[in-house]
Amino acid sequence: MSRFCFGIDIGGTTIKMGVFTEEGRILHKWEIPTRTEDNGRYILKDVADSINNIIIERNIDRENILGIGIGVPGPVTADGTVLKCVNLGWDIFNVADTMKNLTGFSTRVNNDANVAALGEMWRGGGKGYKSIIMVTLGTGVGGGVIINGEIVTGSRGAAGEIGHLSVNFNETRTCGCGNKGCLEQYASATGIVNEAKKLLASRKEDSLLRSVPELTAKDIFDCAKKEDALALELVDQLGRYLGISLGRVATVVDPEAFVIGGGVSKAGDILINAIKKHYNTHIMFALEGKEFKLAELGNDAGIYGAAKMILRN
Amino acid sequence: MSRFCFGIDIGGTTIKMGVFTEEGRILHKWEIPTRTEDNGRYILKDVADSINNIIIERNIDRENILGIGIGVPGPVTADGTVLKCVNLGWDIFNVADTMKNLTGFSTRVNNDANVAALGEMWRGGGKGYKSIIMVTLGTGVGGGVIINGEIVTGSRGAAGEIGHLSVNFNETRTCGCGNKGCLEQYASATGIVNEAKKLLASRKEDSLLRSVPELTAKDIFDCAKKEDALALELVDQLGRYLGISLGRVATVVDPEAFVIGGGVSKAGDILINAIKKHYNTHIMFALEGKEFKLAELGNDAGIYGAAKMILRN
Repeated sequence: MSRFCFGIDIGGTTIKMGVFTEEGRILHKWEIPTRTEDNGRYILKDVADSINNIIIERNIDRENILGIGIGVPGPVTADGTVLKCVNLGWDIFNVADTMKNLTGFSTRVNNDANVAALGEMWRGGGKGYKSIIMVTLGTGVGGGVIINGEIVTGSRGAAGEIGHLSVNFNETRTCGCGNKGCLEQYASATGIVNEAKKLLASRKEDSLLRSVPELTAKDIFDCAKKEDALALELVDQLGRYLGISLGRVATVVDPEAFVIGGGVSKAGDILINAIKKHYNTHIMFALEGKEFKLAELGNDAGIYGAAKMILRN
Repeated sequence: MSRFCFGIDIGGTTIKMGVFTEEGRILHKWEIPTRTEDNGRYILKDVADSINNIIIERNIDRENILGIGIGVPGPVTADGTVLKCVNLGWDIFNVADTMKNLTGFSTRVNNDANVAALGEMWRGGGKGYKSIIMVTLGTGVGGGVIINGEIVTGSRGAAGEIGHLSVNFNETRTCGCGNKGCLEQYASATGIVNEAKKLLASRKEDSLLRSVPELTAKDIFDCAKKEDALALELVDQLGRYLGISLGRVATVVDPEAFVIGGGVSKAGDILINAIKKHYNTHIMFALEGKEFKLAELGNDAGIYGAAKMILRN
């Protein structure tokens, strides 16, 4: 008789859900909308109801449910307490206890980027490794640190905040985190476009980029693949910020591999090669030549990682 | 009937040894010289003989020995394999297995800076915490990362190499690690003096430092305590390098506290305050206001940490 667990990824607009067998096979995945009204008070209730429905629908014996794993967009301490999730309207409370009370199932909660990193280690770009660093290059820059198969959560739930590594002390714009010159300000999709606009304004050379009406990060990689000099310079600068930052991360935890995900990572090898070049130029001998992999699970990384928090070994 | 373990700290000139009760009380500590001749082939044999002597001398029942913890000056992988210890003349071999064969006791081995960090967490400046970062400012700059009471070893035994965090990309001198612009090049005792000499040569102002015949790191702190402007500038620069680097470390692992040790840390509050100032200026909100403590165990941190590897809980 197989046993089951749930992997839940709560985002600002939708909640992704999956039911997994004990062996780690995904049986079914679905989504429900995130109701952020009234400070997000219905969110966990909606999740619990949806879990109950699937249990009834699939005729699963409640005795065979191992638990629920949840990723949420914000810092979470080791006991499952969120310290504010702005996107959900949540203040400080214990999500793990609340979900356990609602469902009767033991629940583990962690930050969504950390959970996605665990998912990629388990079934994605980091498969075969036990210690990885994941960095997600999307609207923002997220990160997760996995050591010996476990998420590093941090004493305030703020471990793995790779997007907020300081990389430029001359920056005058303040990042959302309160610091200035964070990696996210240059390596997120928005950051990449900002840097491109600055470069185009400061230089006179012709560039394919000048004729693109609404510049996106993808355009910059596309033009770089066509050998456009300014686009190549931008990709090199991005690789430098990321390579140097990931080198610093390696100097702290010495992972087996890095996994690069998020929309920007669709650029593929050109991005990986730019990161590797600068990583290897600015690192001690002992940490040279680490593996850099592309993420593979896309938007499902969260539900996989959430399930893995329950299926621990 | 109490049980016992041994904590061993193997250095390039002496080996520090301690016998501890299961409850963590140190019964006796002593030292033997490190015989580095013939590629250090006698070192572990000498340690084993010394352990055997103390067992006989103190009439300890071999059944009551829980094991041996060892710190060595170089990278060590999780299974106890050293990847070269230049100071000992050692090449690649498994120290844990070798020691177990020599004594019959189970053995755990880790890098000396990591082991010292564990010792400080257990009985020193990090007492009461489970997740700390230790940085040792001595001839070099060493570091150790402890998360949930366990050393982070790293896939190549190179985690916690905080002295080799990149801090200055304009540096032309190569560090011993192969990189350029490592924290160690500015924050070690030697690095601090080098920076002072550079500053004194580049500036014209009068300074108490100009009349010191053989400048040491201590002189710089002493002059700063007397409000000497150039010495204050040097302490502030040191605080900046350390504060920024430790901020990056916090962004990766979010420890409860930092512990600052090594000879340079004898400067005390003036150093801690300089580090805190820059740490808090260059960090995301969520990581502000961490604890910075001075190390307390001095040269005994290694034997305490080595014992703690055996007395795990």
